[in-house]
Amino acid sequence: MEVYFDNAATTKPFPEVIDKIVQGYEEYGNTSSLHNKGIRAEKLVKEAKSVFAKLLKVDDKELFFTSGGTESNNLAIIGTALANRRSGKHIITSSIEHASVLNTMKALEEDGFVDTFEITVIEVNKEGIIDIEALKDAIREDTILVSLMHVNNEIGSVQPIKEIGRIIKESNSKTLFHVDGVQSFGKYSIHPKKDLIDLLSISAHKIHGPKGVGLLFVKDKVKIKPIIFGGNHQKGLRSGTENVPGVMGFAEAAKLMYESLEEKIQYLYNIKKELAYGILNNIDDTAINGSIEEGAPHILNIRFKYIRSEVLMHTLENNGIYVSTGSACSSNKNSTSQVLKCLGLDINEVDESVRFSFSVYNTIEEVNYCIENLKKEVPFLRRYVRGGK
Amino acid sequence: MEVYFDNAATTKPFPEVIDKIVQGYEEYGNTSSLHNKGIRAEKLVKEAKSVFAKLLKVDDKELFFTSGGTESNNLAIIGTALANRRSGKHIITSSIEHASVLNTMKALEEDGFVDTFEITVIEVNKEGIIDIEALKDAIREDTILVSLMHVNNEIGSVQPIKEIGRIIKESNSKTLFHVDGVQSFGKYSIHPKKDLIDLLSISAHKIHGPKGVGLLFVKDKVKIKPIIFGGNHQKGLRSGTENVPGVMGFAEAAKLMYESLEEKIQYLYNIKKELAYGILNNIDDTAINGSIEEGAPHILNIRFKYIRSEVLMHTLENNGIYVSTGSACSSNKNSTSQVLKCLGLDINEVDESVRFSFSVYNTIEEVNYCIENLKKEVPFLRRYVRGGK
Repeated sequence: MEVYFDNAATTKPFPEVIDKIVQGYEEYGNTSSLHNKGIRAEKLVKEAKSVFAKLLKVDDKELFFTSGGTESNNLAIIGTALANRRSGKHIITSSIEHASVLNTMKALEEDGFVDTFEITVIEVNKEGIIDIEALKDAIREDTILVSLMHVNNEIGSVQPIKEIGRIIKESNSKTLFHVDGVQSFGKYSIHPKKDLIDLLSISAHKIHGPKGVGLLFVKDKVKIKPIIFGGNHQKGLRSGTENVPGVMGFAEAAKLMYESLEEKIQYLYNIKKELAYGILNNIDDTAINGSIEEGAPHILNIRFKYIRSEVLMHTLENNGIYVSTGSACSSNKNSTSQVLKCLGLDINEVDESVRFSFSVYNTIEEVNYCIENLKKEVPFLRRYVRGGK
Repeated sequence: MEVYFDNAATTKPFPEVIDKIVQGYEEYGNTSSLHNKGIRAEKLVKEAKSVFAKLLKVDDKELFFTSGGTESNNLAIIGTALANRRSGKHIITSSIEHASVLNTMKALEEDGFVDTFEITVIEVNKEGIIDIEALKDAIREDTILVSLMHVNNEIGSVQPIKEIGRIIKESNSKTLFHVDGVQSFGKYSIHPKKDLIDLLSISAHKIHGPKGVGLLFVKDKVKIKPIIFGGNHQKGLRSGTENVPGVMGFAEAAKLMYESLEEKIQYLYNIKKELAYGILNNIDDTAINGSIEEGAPHILNIRFKYIRSEVLMHTLENNGIYVSTGSACSSNKNSTSQVLKCLGLDINEVDESVRFSFSVYNTIEEVNYCIENLKKEVPFLRRYVRGGK
């Protein structure tokens, strides 16, 4: 049996998505061409955009396609930093952000990439929720941007973005709010206008869409500059020939994700809970990082005491079960999880943590198979690693 | 009959390319995952990279996948400008570059995007070939980069890049040479090491590959900084989950383009010449912009006196023939071609110019159909636009 429990890293594309991509390659025009072939391609991009406009309840004109979540986050942060630096050079983020946010902040702070900005990093509690009071205190007159993720990719903690949006705007109405929605889009209803979000990043391959495609919502009138220059596609904010098949596949994935969303969420929570309690109730010395019911439906992070996660990962892999140690979003494969450290875990606890992440393709049968494997393998590995203790 | 003569804008993907993309979506792992699914995905990316390494005669480690030609050009220019600004802030380019080069230069010069650089723009002669003496004179001790395109996208003029490479290195051995090879890759053998090229940009969708994928060659030891930050994929130069299906399709397209390259080139020149002489010999008051035999095999730019190109384009479109006015690389659809102006054409001549661009999918039958159409339509349009004169 093959069990793919690494859906926070990337997902299997829906068959309908692949069909759309192939269809997109049959209609191969360049959206910038003035003739029919170009106009038809442009229409397909517009149709894709309108899918997101409806789901997010925003205007088509506020949506910009990118090459993925990483570029969306970079454009949101660098683009607004550049455009608003005359108003201030202070930016706030949290300690558990994705590398595409934290390393972009580092570039703005240290490398003198574009200018030198001051970055305040807000800490999180042991459930991975940011310290709201600290955020409130950190917002200053020269704070131009707060960038926070909605759902954490490693432990699934969910930030109260509505409350945060309100607090930001109450503290400084000019401070922009960027939300990295890469792990939450497709699992939560996000309505930037109502939630006071100025910029929202999403990615296609996390929702059974194609790799290499992302989206950035930029609220009307938000000042932002491009980070890639060229033929002034997408109103000059993101130049480059538009990836028609990619955005068609992306829109199809989004449409499918939000069909019967509530049922899907319940399905995922069911998978998550079955696995979580199956492990906690059957295997000694295990503990949840984050929260089962408060966390996102598709991410479960568990510590198996005395076992290095890499060893457990490879053991499960030999039985056809794919899980993750730390984040697969970094190519620094052997680096220790910063997120888990920020929860207050010690180095051993971090090294003992495994992420299981789910999609609608997973089944209870797979969960049971995984639990049976863990019941068999974990005691065996513990004997082995603890020298028979 | 449908005749697609707009292959410089974008190309129809090879069926084998679509097959590879679909195959890539079946193997949907994240290259950053430590388990087998990730390792298999990584292997596919490595295989794709090695195709380019062989074709370009460079090392795999010198190749970086991007989201397309525009990003490759941006990374080459901004990335080297940032990394080498302590050695100097002078950059040279030409007046007929693609918007993704010229607008990036403008950002470096005017917008204070990262720092303020001095840009020297070299002019071209009426065949669209840059003034080599002017280039030689422009290179200074603080010139960190020369960025030039190999084949021009509007008129197909071909720069003598080998000679230029030699001149640059003789004038200042530290000056980097970036070549925008988007329109030449797949039509010319390019060997950066032999040709003294330090950076080379290429794009997939111009060679029957997928949209949203590009490549940048960066010679070993060339100092360059990233413009997109994140999980440190691709040695930190280009973060973001790797687009496995995209690069697989791109590599397949490259492989196919370079199979029997000489035959393909002859085939394209044959198409180009048949159309060019068919027009010149049968329709009065027509003239070539650029050169038939000296220019690239797939691009033909022709003036039809007294007819606005947009009118002719739409007339041909009604007969199923797709051509282009100016460049389709810009979304500023109604802007006048800067390239044609740089050749010394007056505003009327620019407005009378049409680009026909070819691929191996085109046939002599299509050429004849196009000539018949032009023989019928051009006199009719001239009567119409000149009021029966």
